[in-house]
Amino acid sequence: MRIQFTKMHALGNDYILIDGIRYPEALKQGSEIAKKWSDRHFGVGSDGVIFACASDKANVMMRMFNADGSESEMCGNGIRQLARFVYEKNIVKKDRLIIETLAGLKEITMEREGENFRITVDMGAPILAPQEIPANVPADPKGFSKTMIQAADKTFEFTLVSMGNPHAITYVPSVKDVDVHRYGPLVENNTTIFPRRTNVEFIEVVSRDELRMRVWERGAGETLACGTGACASVVASILNGLTNKSVRVHLLGGPLDIRWDENSGHVIMTGDAVTVFEGEKEI
Amino acid sequence: MRIQFTKMHALGNDYILIDGIRYPEALKQGSEIAKKWSDRHFGVGSDGVIFACASDKANVMMRMFNADGSESEMCGNGIRQLARFVYEKNIVKKDRLIIETLAGLKEITMEREGENFRITVDMGAPILAPQEIPANVPADPKGFSKTMIQAADKTFEFTLVSMGNPHAITYVPSVKDVDVHRYGPLVENNTTIFPRRTNVEFIEVVSRDELRMRVWERGAGETLACGTGACASVVASILNGLTNKSVRVHLLGGPLDIRWDENSGHVIMTGDAVTVFEGEKEI
Repeated sequence: MRIQFTKMHALGNDYILIDGIRYPEALKQGSEIAKKWSDRHFGVGSDGVIFACASDKANVMMRMFNADGSESEMCGNGIRQLARFVYEKNIVKKDRLIIETLAGLKEITMEREGENFRITVDMGAPILAPQEIPANVPADPKGFSKTMIQAADKTFEFTLVSMGNPHAITYVPSVKDVDVHRYGPLVENNTTIFPRRTNVEFIEVVSRDELRMRVWERGAGETLACGTGACASVVASILNGLTNKSVRVHLLGGPLDIRWDENSGHVIMTGDAVTVFEGEKEI
Repeated sequence: MRIQFTKMHALGNDYILIDGIRYPEALKQGSEIAKKWSDRHFGVGSDGVIFACASDKANVMMRMFNADGSESEMCGNGIRQLARFVYEKNIVKKDRLIIETLAGLKEITMEREGENFRITVDMGAPILAPQEIPANVPADPKGFSKTMIQAADKTFEFTLVSMGNPHAITYVPSVKDVDVHRYGPLVENNTTIFPRRTNVEFIEVVSRDELRMRVWERGAGETLACGTGACASVVASILNGLTNKSVRVHLLGGPLDIRWDENSGHVIMTGDAVTVFEGEKEI
């Protein structure tokens, strides 16, 4: 059976989008299709496959399979692509919508200007209690935790924030000059402190409204972009008094605008999502 | 303007195929399209773009642009993909055809069995004179050259063969265990011996009819497959008395059947080419 798909990316984090309502057979084989199609030489090539599915609680449901076939609960870059996909394919033609994910309901708003979509996702509240991150460090009376970690020849001070997944954020004079591939894995795998390992963010403060970030993702290595990492880094920077509450974060793959909303306590992320091409392939 | 393309691969060496006769505007921008579309996160993702073009000397002409935008004369894996593409798209519906390349006319034959294509390419005669490879080693009265090269802690014996591009072939007990990333670049860049650098092949002799190969490609690093490298390795193995004249070579990306034809002196390569998906994209 031949099915249609759309290849998209957000900050270089690229997915194959499939209408799972139109192609239930494809959704059933989601894990196998993700493994086969994600291969960058023998397949279509992607970080994974996202299906738009029916939901009885929201406008649409996101099901997301990584390149290794495992299913993901949620991805900030992926959900923006799904929002644009369901809009362009007339599955859900709304500028405000609720997307059901395995990590709960997510509220999305879209601004469109010609080919450009600016998509805003409510990423929820950060988690700061160390036992919930989880991180084996003492709880701090100021409400968030920092810890010193030795990695090879250097000692870094990390601020610890979870956005549903753990992040260790450190400040460097220049992200260009930091050896992410050397220090990233040593911190990621410091299971004495991080029993479920951690993502690691290296942050350069450009101004009170602007950060530069490189990220070492748990299980993936250095990537072009990590939405939860950008959110966690802005939360850490606000807590450390380094930035205002609304910050542009420059990642290798492009910019994200992050705002920590005082009323709701939620982190609000805005970025684009790009349609790369339309495809057809046998399943 | 929206154009159609086909994504294909041969042994994991993957190209975007475009009908340059139907889309002359795309061909005009060939170098820019190759750079942009080959990007594996922001584009379609490929090793390059191949155009089917009109020829007044052959059935069709191949124009081939690498991911960096440079134009290639010829690629054994790429030309098989072009042969299948022009057949399936009814551009040239022939089982025997001549393809014009920037490296001259190439004769192709195809055997089809359902979805599987076995495609044979006449790769021409090997070049064994060291000054033509080029390699700064003395000419050997036996007609082909070998040289010892020190790389880090090891000394390898290399047999030198050109298939239009230079190859240095060495024999190892097991291709699994050889540190291609360590020794490959040291041999590639030994410009005392190889003034235009060299491709490096590590070969495990399985039997008189079968080789296993890993290749360090000049300017590209370790790749899944290299057609000229497989041809050069079979020529070297025949010259060294290690194999018969018809050999299956197992590369990381899959097998190639190579025959050194006694009458013509040409090397004949047979392998498959796979259509991965059909796509549409704006140029």
